[in-house]
This record gives sequence, structure tokens and C-alpha cells, in this order.
Amino acid sequence: MSGAFSFQVFSAQPGGKARAGRLETPHGPVDTPAFMAVGTQATVKTLDPDDLLAVGSQIILANAYHLSLRPGAERIARLGGLHAFMRWKGPILTDSGGYQLVSLAPLAKVTNEGIAFQSHLDGARMHLTPERAVEIQEALGPDIAMVLDEPLGFPHARAEAEDALRRTNWADRSRDVHRRPDQSLFGIVQGGAFPDLRRESANQLKSLDFPGYAIGGLCLGETKHDTGVLLDAATEVLPEDKPRYVMGMGTPADLLRGVARAADMFDCVMPTRHARRGNLFTRAGRISIKNAAFEEDPAPVDEDCACPTCRGGFSRAYLRHLHRAGETLGQRLMTLHNLHFYQDLLRRAREHIRVGDFTAWSDKLLAGPLGKDPEGPPGGAGGFRRGRDGKIAGEGN
Amino acid sequence: MSGAFSFQVFSAQPGGKARAGRLETPHGPVDTPAFMAVGTQATVKTLDPDDLLAVGSQIILANAYHLSLRPGAERIARLGGLHAFMRWKGPILTDSGGYQLVSLAPLAKVTNEGIAFQSHLDGARMHLTPERAVEIQEALGPDIAMVLDEPLGFPHARAEAEDALRRTNWADRSRDVHRRPDQSLFGIVQGGAFPDLRRESANQLKSLDFPGYAIGGLCLGETKHDTGVLLDAATEVLPEDKPRYVMGMGTPADLLRGVARAADMFDCVMPTRHARRGNLFTRAGRISIKNAAFEEDPAPVDEDCACPTCRGGFSRAYLRHLHRAGETLGQRLMTLHNLHFYQDLLRRAREHIRVGDFTAWSDKLLAGPLGKDPEGPPGGAGGFRRGRDGKIAGEGN
Repeated sequence: MSGAFSFQVFSAQPGGKARAGRLETPHGPVDTPAFMAVGTQATVKTLDPDDLLAVGSQIILANAYHLSLRPGAERIARLGGLHAFMRWKGPILTDSGGYQLVSLAPLAKVTNEGIAFQSHLDGARMHLTPERAVEIQEALGPDIAMVLDEPLGFPHARAEAEDALRRTNWADRSRDVHRRPDQSLFGIVQGGAFPDLRRESANQLKSLDFPGYAIGGLCLGETKHDTGVLLDAATEVLPEDKPRYVMGMGTPADLLRGVARAADMFDCVMPTRHARRGNLFTRAGRISIKNAAFEEDPAPVDEDCACPTCRGGFSRAYLRHLHRAGETLGQRLMTLHNLHFYQDLLRRAREHIRVGDFTAWSDKLLAGPLGKDPEGPPGGAGGFRRGRDGKIAGEGN
Repeated sequence: MSGAFSFQVFSAQPGGKARAGRLETPHGPVDTPAFMAVGTQATVKTLDPDDLLAVGSQIILANAYHLSLRPGAERIARLGGLHAFMRWKGPILTDSGGYQLVSLAPLAKVTNEGIAFQSHLDGARMHLTPERAVEIQEALGPDIAMVLDEPLGFPHARAEAEDALRRTNWADRSRDVHRRPDQSLFGIVQGGAFPDLRRESANQLKSLDFPGYAIGGLCLGETKHDTGVLLDAATEVLPEDKPRYVMGMGTPADLLRGVARAADMFDCVMPTRHARRGNLFTRAGRISIKNAAFEEDPAPVDEDCACPTCRGGFSRAYLRHLHRAGETLGQRLMTLHNLHFYQDLLRRAREHIRVGDFTAWSDKLLAGPLGKDPEGPPGGAGGFRRGRDGKIAGEGN
């Protein structure tokens, strides 16, 4: 464990599990609960590092699998590491990419040894082991690395989940080879759709004493109710004094529900992907900039929003024009807005946890437009999947 | 003529024709000689207004034809005009779009009345008259509007050029209907490949006393020698105390040669278009970021460059990665660099004119890599054409 890495819970919600804390990393602090924008290919699409700071980002995510294929992890190491490469001075977390490989590569084959697959770029045959995943991430140099894991899409049989769990020795193997002192390696709780397997997985990982724990394989088609049950099964076992990161979650409502279940970190392509398609989060609900109602609307996306796009006075009419004209400036301006919405939601969540009225505040929001987001209804098969390229599965780019 | 519009020549090059001056517009000053970045659809592709300021832009160009089709000139007027619409506080010049229609729309038909054509967006039949072109631009509200003109591609017969010249009464008609006091309407010198027709055109326009004059129909396939001869033919007739704008010019070398021939304003898609394709201007010559030599190059594009991209420490290796990965952040970072290169070249030209050593400075640059740009050799059929969408003709997007 790195000396520079620590986690403290400052305040917990009376009568609830929501908690606010601070993660210290070699590249600075992260206030939790935190949302991490997804920068799969060493860029949060359309944004530069100053943009990320302007919307309140403290930590971002990149994808080790993608970067290992292009431009190459060792190449990035020779260029001074991922921070220097992309000029982002804050903390970075890299996903190992196991998820992308397993869930979406039709040719990926999982054995006890690792994952055999073909590169999506040039078809080259490759083999990703837990050891190689650590090696790649040590080369890239993020503050937080993830063990290689094998998440399962829903629905799946119990036997599949047990098989995957047996491979939790991937976590041991990862832990054994990880050396980099300025990098923390997180374990990932699996167990599929089965709370008892989730508890078993969490217990196994806990015994390995990771500096942080992710909960993987959620938001993959299960009901919102089941997400909650499975998340609880994991967090009830995991140590209180370590950060919990829920991978691939989610809608704004998902985040609030996750925070209420004692999650500390989140990532999802939803705000950025939605922005590039003209779908914008506002306090009054989600809007599509393609709507003809906006064609002469001089108002900003959200009157109360302090993001660079709304503060800059860019109107709905202008954003609609840029979107229709295929101008990438529109993608950037809308990405700034949506990411700011996510960061601001988490910032307010942290404040309400500290003040002690998180539950009341969150319940009120969930009863409003934010709880009615098309991707957000309980029982739906919604929830965005992250594809092999960090994109939402089933949708072209 | 607007009270807010004026032009002054401060300094001229001893023993040469290069001149430095200042254009005052309702939205602020423009130091000349000036380069105008092309923002066809009310955005200089990938950049926001702060980006434009950061690279030294004082005035930008938009396209009245495009904006009249989408989102509509009257719509932009209802939204407060083009400045408010795109949040650019500085001066704007709009091109009427005659060029795009005539040279590239296969269905455009030119009569004495105007140009009949089909919309490239939905195929609707439309008719653009000189009067309507003024009306559109009065609705859009740029500081400088252009009369509708009919440029000719090279080569062309003298009879064609004479025909087009006869339609110079389009300039009279435009002048007659133009009313907007906070907008200046520029005439456009035509005359094709024939110096005597260029002089005749310039004389006709001069008698109409426009507040500024463009020289159109250059950089369309003629030799660099002919460009110079035709430019001289126009500028020798045009009044000294009015700005001269050479439309669609050009390479960095073209700009220096244009400045030496007493031109004051330029526009071209070259720096922005090149940037999006990974072609970068440097003091050591143009480079392609796709070159494998840059794959581990930690240096900025140009060590001596003060643009946001180079100053920000983004390496050639990172830009190459973004370009190969299809990430639009790369397009933006490279557009910032190239536009800064153009603006900086003109800034230095203005300084050297003021100091009095422009010719020596320019000759030295032209003898170096800048004079050897692939699009820049004398006698070549190079020179970028601007297509109907403000793009370079003959190249897909």
C-alpha cells in the first residue's frame, strides 16, 4: 500500500448508511462520494484537462485494456506515464478491461489462467492474465489500478457465477505481483445475481486486505431492486474504513441510491455519451436538444446551472443547431453541462451527508424528475452497459 | 456606411506595398493585415469563442448561405443576431455564399436576376438574388457583409469572365437595398483570369464607393504568378484608404505574398481543415501527426510556440494517439495550434511592417520551410478551394 494513499470517512448519515469521506492519492484528494468521468482512451471525449477541472472533476477513469492496445502501456510509460501523457494532474483510476473483454468480445475465452481474445483493432490474438493486467497498469501509472475480473451479464445461472467466483484467485495473483508503491490496487467483488455469492466474494477479498474494493457486475440488466440487494450484500461485508467503488453506475437516481447504500465512488459513460447524442440532464428532468421546441429557445440548458456552457450563455437554440449541423463544439458544450450536472449532484450529496439531511434531500429528488429518468425506473432492464470500448453496449458510436 | 466603421492605414513598408492598419467595427477593432478563421456554420469547427481569443483571433467569418438554410437567417435574427447566437463578441464577416453555389452546386443556374439552386440539405428549390443576400446578412447582423458575386473556377474563357463581369450590377443592386447602419457591405472584384477585366471590375466597384473591397475568384487553380498579377491589377485601382480582403487565401506563404501586395484581410479553411486531418504548421515546416516518427515524441508540436496546445504540454505522441483513436479532442488541440500559427504569422507581419523591415523578414521566411509548403510552390495548381460548405473542394470531410 502506498503511504500517499489513505481513506477517511468524515461523516455518516444519521439513521442511514450514506457517508462522506476523503480519499488521498499521490495526485491529490478525492472527496467522496465521487463520480469519475470515463476517459477510455486517455481523454474524456471532447474535453481537455482544464475542462474537467471546470466541471468539478477530481478523479477520472481510463481503460487499461484499450490503452495497452493503442498506443501501448509501455509506450505511455516511456512518455512519463498516463498523467503526463494526457496532461491530467489529478488522480486517475484505470479499469483493467476484463469487463469489456468478457461481456462483449465474441471471441474471448476465459480460463483459470486468464482471458484469451482477439484485439478489436487488428484481430491479433492476445492473452490477458491477472499478472499482465497489473503489469499494464503499473506501466500506465494510475493512482488506482483494478484487478482483472470476470463480470457476468444478466441473466445468468448460479453455476456461471460460482465458476467466475472460483476464479477470484485472480485477485490473489494480482495482489501478489503488484509492486508499485505509488499505486493502490482495488479488488472487485463479484458473485453475479446471488447475494450469498456476493458475500462470499467480499469475504475472500477482505481477507486479502485491499486498500479499496469495487463492486462489479452491477447495472447489467438486473432490476433496480436486485441492484440494491446485491450492493448491500457486498457492502455489509466489506470493511468500513476502505472505499467502495460501484463500477458502471449509473443514472443520477442510481448514484443517489448507491450513496444511500454506502458507496463511495462511481463511474459511468452515461453523462458523456448522452451529451454527445444531445440528451441533457437538468433539474427539471432530461431533455433532448433535438426537440423542435428548442429551435428558437434563447435560454441556457438549465437556468440555475453554473456549468461553463450555461454560464457562457450558449442557448438551447444554438446547441440544437450545432447538434443538427454535426458540429463537435456542440458535443463538447453538452458534455461540459452533463458532467457538471453529475459532479454537482455528488457535491450536493456530500454536503447533505455532512449536514445530516441526505436522506430527506435525496428522497425529495428521487420523487421528482430525477427519479423518473427513462433509464431509471425500478424494475426496468435499463442501466447502461459499458461496452468493450467503454461505450454503452448495444449502441453504435 | 456605419459611423462605427472606419479604416486607417498606420504604416506602410518603405519601398514596398505592404501596409498595417486598423479596422474599427461595431464589435471592436481588427488589426490588419488580418486572418479570419472560417466558422461556416456559426462555429469555427471544434472551437468556442474563448478558444478563438486564446489563439489571437480578432475577427471571424461565417457563411450566410449556410446559415440561411440552417438554422435560418430570420431565426438567428429573432435570437438576437449572429453574435449573440454563437456568443462571439468580436467582429464577424459573412460571405454571401455565391461562391459555394456557383462553383460547386451542380444544379445552380446563374441568370442576371440571381442564382437558382437546390438546397444541399433537403433539395428544396431556392433563388438567391443580390437583394436576398443582403436581406439575409442584415438579418444575421455581421459587422461586414459581402455582395453576392459569381466567381469562376480556372481555367475559363474570356467570354465567361465578361459575362460574369456584366453581372457586376449585382453590386449596384446590393448597395441600393443595403440599409443596416451598423453593418458595412463590401464589394467583390471579379474579372477572372484577365487583368484588364480585373481593373474594369475594380473601377466599377470603386465608383460605388464601398467601405471595403474584396478580391474574389483567386486561389482557384491559377498559378501563383497569375494570382499576383491579378491581385495587383485590382489593388492598383482600388482606393488606398479602404480595406482589401482577398477571399479564400491561403497558405502561410500566400498570406505573406498577399500582404506584400497590399492586401489587408484574408480567410481560408486551410489551418482548421489541415488541423482536423493532423497536418500541423511549424516554423520548421508542415508535419503530419500521423507520421510514425512521432509515436514516442514527448515534444510539443513546436518548441517555440505559445499556443494553448504547445504551452499546455500536449506532446506530439499524445496528439498522434488522439488522431489515430478518432478522438475529437485531438482535432481541437491541433486546430488551436494551426490557427495560432496563422494569427501569429500575421501579428509578426504587422510588427515588421511597423518597424519597416517586412520585406526582408518575409523574404527570409519564404526562402525557408514556409515557402516550401506542399500547397505553396509557385506554378502549382494547388491552393485550396472552398467548397459549398466552406470546406475545401474535392476533399471529403
